[in-house]
Amino acid sequence: MARPLILVTNDDGIIAPGIRALISVMKELGEVVVVAPDSPQSAMGHAITINDTLKLTKVQIDNEVEKEYSCSGTPVDCVKIAVNEILKRKPDLCVSGVNHGSNSSINVIYSGTMSAAVEAGIEGIPAIGFSLLDYSWDANFEPIKSHIKKIASEVLKNGLPEGVILNVNFPKLAKEDIKGTKICRQAKAMWQEEFDKRTNPHGKDYYWLTGKFVNLDKGTDTDEWALENGYISIVPVQFDLTAHHAMQQLNSWDL
Amino acid sequence: MARPLILVTNDDGIIAPGIRALISVMKELGEVVVVAPDSPQSAMGHAITINDTLKLTKVQIDNEVEKEYSCSGTPVDCVKIAVNEILKRKPDLCVSGVNHGSNSSINVIYSGTMSAAVEAGIEGIPAIGFSLLDYSWDANFEPIKSHIKKIASEVLKNGLPEGVILNVNFPKLAKEDIKGTKICRQAKAMWQEEFDKRTNPHGKDYYWLTGKFVNLDKGTDTDEWALENGYISIVPVQFDLTAHHAMQQLNSWDL
Repeated sequence: MARPLILVTNDDGIIAPGIRALISVMKELGEVVVVAPDSPQSAMGHAITINDTLKLTKVQIDNEVEKEYSCSGTPVDCVKIAVNEILKRKPDLCVSGVNHGSNSSINVIYSGTMSAAVEAGIEGIPAIGFSLLDYSWDANFEPIKSHIKKIASEVLKNGLPEGVILNVNFPKLAKEDIKGTKICRQAKAMWQEEFDKRTNPHGKDYYWLTGKFVNLDKGTDTDEWALENGYISIVPVQFDLTAHHAMQQLNSWDL
Repeated sequence: MARPLILVTNDDGIIAPGIRALISVMKELGEVVVVAPDSPQSAMGHAITINDTLKLTKVQIDNEVEKEYSCSGTPVDCVKIAVNEILKRKPDLCVSGVNHGSNSSINVIYSGTMSAAVEAGIEGIPAIGFSLLDYSWDANFEPIKSHIKKIASEVLKNGLPEGVILNVNFPKLAKEDIKGTKICRQAKAMWQEEFDKRTNPHGKDYYWLTGKFVNLDKGTDTDEWALENGYISIVPVQFDLTAHHAMQQLNSWDL
């Protein structure tokens, strides 16, 4: 069998240690092409660039891969332009991350890392987003490398159900303290926003968005539970947003 | 009963004719507060602003409402800052739009209009995104005003199931040619990207993202079918992205 073709992207930007760790693992599994944002794109969700131009630059960051490009757009733009302008064929796998910080629970919807993986899924490419529960730039990705390799290998071997993408989150633990892997549902949690209001030197108010993550979901089958209890969480994610369970009720309305 | 409190936002920007039409309808139903982007934010998806500041400006566009604010952020930022900094209580309804252009099928995931409504849904506010299948700035919103009023009234009366938001799309038709309303599922369609590659005056390449919408879903229960056949489509949308149907299969993997 030919070596698998693997597209690597992220949302923290092409020089982030998380994507460099991911590249080093993927090189053991196949031919790697990197197309990632030229600057941090956290919390960009599924944004795409339609009112501005996109720039693509061939770069060499650490001699890990031959085909590496930085892109001026969002993580979703990176996947689109990689598939259309750089890759000669549809890749066998798209991996996004490793994100510096959690994308569990409701974070999946704000996440540029996961949106890039979801975009690949929409285009029919098996895709995984990886995130480590450590926001620091010098987070230690060594304890999770073997797990990343195992999960990506399983996806390369088995494929994924149509329209399904994996959202993988790792607890911040030493390798020997990781208890295993759990297939989970997304916990019903949310952010309680708090805006930090300040006044600029010219007397005009401005705000910083901050917030507190609140998980009221007591289920033991959620990603939050798994991560709090030392497990790697894997949530299968879909982009058919239809709330099928609500259709019958709505059909009873007088519209 | 007190008059309902209604938050209005959009992604085309606060001066867009679509939001002005929506405001005029909502004034018939309750007390209206507008917090909308100060510039076009189409295709921003669920992006939020975490690496920059947000500015909020009290504005008066057309004397329709007393409380109206433009915000420098994304549609999702608008909802967050409205709920936290402007509204004295949780609103009874959040409406987003009317978008100039379709948000049916897979467009829901790229849409700033729908992401604003989804954010309200996450915060426990009944929410609806409205879109008209006409991209032009001078689109005619008159034929759909009575339908918007009817749908919003039903939501105010019945509420919505927990975690469910409505994605309403209107065909571009004369009022008498609209055949009715259908509760639909999201069609399995996608964009086939085509990048328009150009060279700038300094010899450097850049790209414009363009594409073609391709619907391969032949179902007659989809939003695309409804719209093509002269109906208003209503898709109930959820933000629990878990692909529950895939969990059993993944549990059989060797991880």
